[in-house]
Amino acid sequence: MTHTEQQSNSSEIRFGVNADYLIINGLVVTMDAEYRIIENGAIAINDGEIVELGYTSDLIEVYKARHLIDAKGKLVIPGLINTHTHSPMTIFRGYADDLQLREWLFDHIFPVEAQFVNSENVRTGTRLAIAEMLLGGTTTFNDMYFYADEMAKVVDQVGMRAILTESLIDFSAPNNPTPEHAMRTSEALIAKWAGHPLITIGVSAHAPYTTSAKVIKGGKELADKNGVPFNIHVAETKGEVEFTQKEFGLSPVEYLESLGVLGSNVIAAHCVHLSPTDIDIFAKRNVGVAHNPQCNMKLASGVAPVPAFLQAGVKVGIGTDGVASNNNLDLFDEIRSAAFIHKLHNDDPTVLDARSAFEMATIGSARVLGMEHLIGSIEAGKRADIVIVDLDQPHAHPVYNIYSLIVYSMRGSDVETVLVDGRLMVYKRKLVSLDLGRLYQKVDSLARRIAESSKILAYSNNRIRKI
Amino acid sequence: MTHTEQQSNSSEIRFGVNADYLIINGLVVTMDAEYRIIENGAIAINDGEIVELGYTSDLIEVYKARHLIDAKGKLVIPGLINTHTHSPMTIFRGYADDLQLREWLFDHIFPVEAQFVNSENVRTGTRLAIAEMLLGGTTTFNDMYFYADEMAKVVDQVGMRAILTESLIDFSAPNNPTPEHAMRTSEALIAKWAGHPLITIGVSAHAPYTTSAKVIKGGKELADKNGVPFNIHVAETKGEVEFTQKEFGLSPVEYLESLGVLGSNVIAAHCVHLSPTDIDIFAKRNVGVAHNPQCNMKLASGVAPVPAFLQAGVKVGIGTDGVASNNNLDLFDEIRSAAFIHKLHNDDPTVLDARSAFEMATIGSARVLGMEHLIGSIEAGKRADIVIVDLDQPHAHPVYNIYSLIVYSMRGSDVETVLVDGRLMVYKRKLVSLDLGRLYQKVDSLARRIAESSKILAYSNNRIRKI
Repeated sequence: MTHTEQQSNSSEIRFGVNADYLIINGLVVTMDAEYRIIENGAIAINDGEIVELGYTSDLIEVYKARHLIDAKGKLVIPGLINTHTHSPMTIFRGYADDLQLREWLFDHIFPVEAQFVNSENVRTGTRLAIAEMLLGGTTTFNDMYFYADEMAKVVDQVGMRAILTESLIDFSAPNNPTPEHAMRTSEALIAKWAGHPLITIGVSAHAPYTTSAKVIKGGKELADKNGVPFNIHVAETKGEVEFTQKEFGLSPVEYLESLGVLGSNVIAAHCVHLSPTDIDIFAKRNVGVAHNPQCNMKLASGVAPVPAFLQAGVKVGIGTDGVASNNNLDLFDEIRSAAFIHKLHNDDPTVLDARSAFEMATIGSARVLGMEHLIGSIEAGKRADIVIVDLDQPHAHPVYNIYSLIVYSMRGSDVETVLVDGRLMVYKRKLVSLDLGRLYQKVDSLARRIAESSKILAYSNNRIRKI
Repeated sequence: MTHTEQQSNSSEIRFGVNADYLIINGLVVTMDAEYRIIENGAIAINDGEIVELGYTSDLIEVYKARHLIDAKGKLVIPGLINTHTHSPMTIFRGYADDLQLREWLFDHIFPVEAQFVNSENVRTGTRLAIAEMLLGGTTTFNDMYFYADEMAKVVDQVGMRAILTESLIDFSAPNNPTPEHAMRTSEALIAKWAGHPLITIGVSAHAPYTTSAKVIKGGKELADKNGVPFNIHVAETKGEVEFTQKEFGLSPVEYLESLGVLGSNVIAAHCVHLSPTDIDIFAKRNVGVAHNPQCNMKLASGVAPVPAFLQAGVKVGIGTDGVASNNNLDLFDEIRSAAFIHKLHNDDPTVLDARSAFEMATIGSARVLGMEHLIGSIEAGKRADIVIVDLDQPHAHPVYNIYSLIVYSMRGSDVETVLVDGRLMVYKRKLVSLDLGRLYQKVDSLARRIAESSKILAYSNNRIRKI
């Protein structure tokens, strides 16, 4: 008997049904197709799945839950989804800011990566990123970096949902001397982690201006062969557009289209400088866009045409990018920035309303990752990636419109409880399975070595002197 | 003997000096003229004043403090300063978002204000704003609204530093049927609250497009006569510039200059659409600008030319505006948005670096309010408005540059301890002198009445239905 039949069959009496968790008394923001919001809502979770969603008064009669979570006076929302980040880069948070993009990347980030990106430091950085993401209500992330196997080990150990990829790039990367080597690494890791309940190894090509056509095509074929996502940075800067125009006489999107690599498993990050033609191509090929508004502002890259994407039916999700260019992983902050910047840029305060902005971080992001059947909304049959948000704060009062509250007032620190795949990861604002004290020691000691080696003072740009 | 002489006189032995508070072991970000940052810093506070600043190892030998606050592993920063807000409007947080400015103001905000702005509700809204501001590290705010006397009563009772004003406007305001009445109210309140250690009653004229020349001039004269600040909204929208051009053949700034009302006690809010000539006038007259980046984005008003202000030597502080258009009072969030938007707008990521952004919320804002001799930096002789920020969070690790950390990573919720005028207002993230539970009940019940009366559903724009 299906779930729907159970519900409609009012003559049937159910009781004592087992559940791992029953969340009760919450204000449940489902983000389902009808944008239902349920007052005094309840969610029954078993074996990592949302088995039923309804009113507390109904579900509390039916389920015998091993753990009861009372969400009275709190919001219950789908776990947030970060569609584009480089999580190990948390170790470089604040290392180089307020610089020209080229100087930032070539004089600071690339050299420090060459020296310090290794297995151990990738594990450390990933762990710090996961800690921050979980505490801020993010339950899934899509990553492109190096040492994907090390990232996967940490993700597996801590317990988060992730798409992890090696970057294919025409330079020597820390763990891959050639893009061909990175391709073989990707292929091996796809096989190694196949069937993992939370981890998907995907494929990434860095960008049209850093990765050859052959490598981009090879990466896409590998992704298609294995039915996994394919990431690529697209048109982040004007310089990139000038590059492909000069080299190929095409925009970055037209160039990728000419390579035949655009499709529904493609996650295109940034997409700041896209023409109407480019947008049509994305719509036709069902490409997903990972929108990174804060990074695009901070590096002065520009404003992605998100309203035009949405109008054309292009899938759009939200991403933070790496914290070396953002510098935090708070998706509440990110969707607020998205709503702000598109209103300003379009000279129209009705653009990207609060619900649309919140959709980008939930079911919208799930669509971009090809995971909308699993996550992105609170619905029976989906995996239980669920976030409970505390409203016991001055900035959460009063409430006239829930989406306005979430997007324009709240922040990651309001997250109180987080479940990933039906497993409790954050409870009363504390991580259940991660020792932060030890992690901070490790991160801080690594940062001291990085700072010393780069001959920058910790607290650089500040004068520290005896007074 | 001055403080400097005391320090330089190493042969003198001091001990047992009384202090109300001694903050020790902090990483003190002074924001003084030399931007000193003191590791293992200590601050001695007595009678509301910072009496000495130095190293913990030194000060701990000298002072016999009634209260010792250990800031080990934490940042100690000057209290943040909000140069432009309408604090009672917290009761309308999220009431009307994602609308055209005119529709938002005339169809939603003005009608609901006409119905619900009264003494009691102003007290409730002010109390909620103060709770939010204090918890987020704001210790001073500059307000223009109605019922300034009621705001002052709450500020006095709770304990915050504030400039409070009645808005002079050519409409009938809730408590003032005419601008002349508002002028008399202002004058009476200036006298009533004169000499209060934390409260200054200033004067406000709403804006060039809503307030007659006569009233603007009268307001400025009243402010000058009493040596208090004079607030006015200036060039927030293109429409306002078109209005003054059409009516007077002048820009809003030129118009105010022609009235002879610009001077060093003028706080001009928004200042989005200013020409180079306007900026020169502001520089010449030493006018202070209250910059509200988030509100200007959310209402699609535009981007104020802040880098040009700073280059011209115009004083610039940060403001949130009221939460009906923002929708929170988090100044960390606001300075992050400021840094982001000016980089993007100027196509240059080096614009408004982290330290400059933080300066806007501290000593920069103090200069705008004419209070730089009292607040805005941690220096001996200034009032003890001090904020201690917790770094025990993933997003606060690692630290390479303190200003980057504050501006690009932190948020109001990281504030742990707040002193205003040497009085403990927030301790371990809890308000010392405000009962939030009772306040929330009052706010929420008022919001229900507002929602019902406006025939909007609470949770409007969302469908709430039985599933």
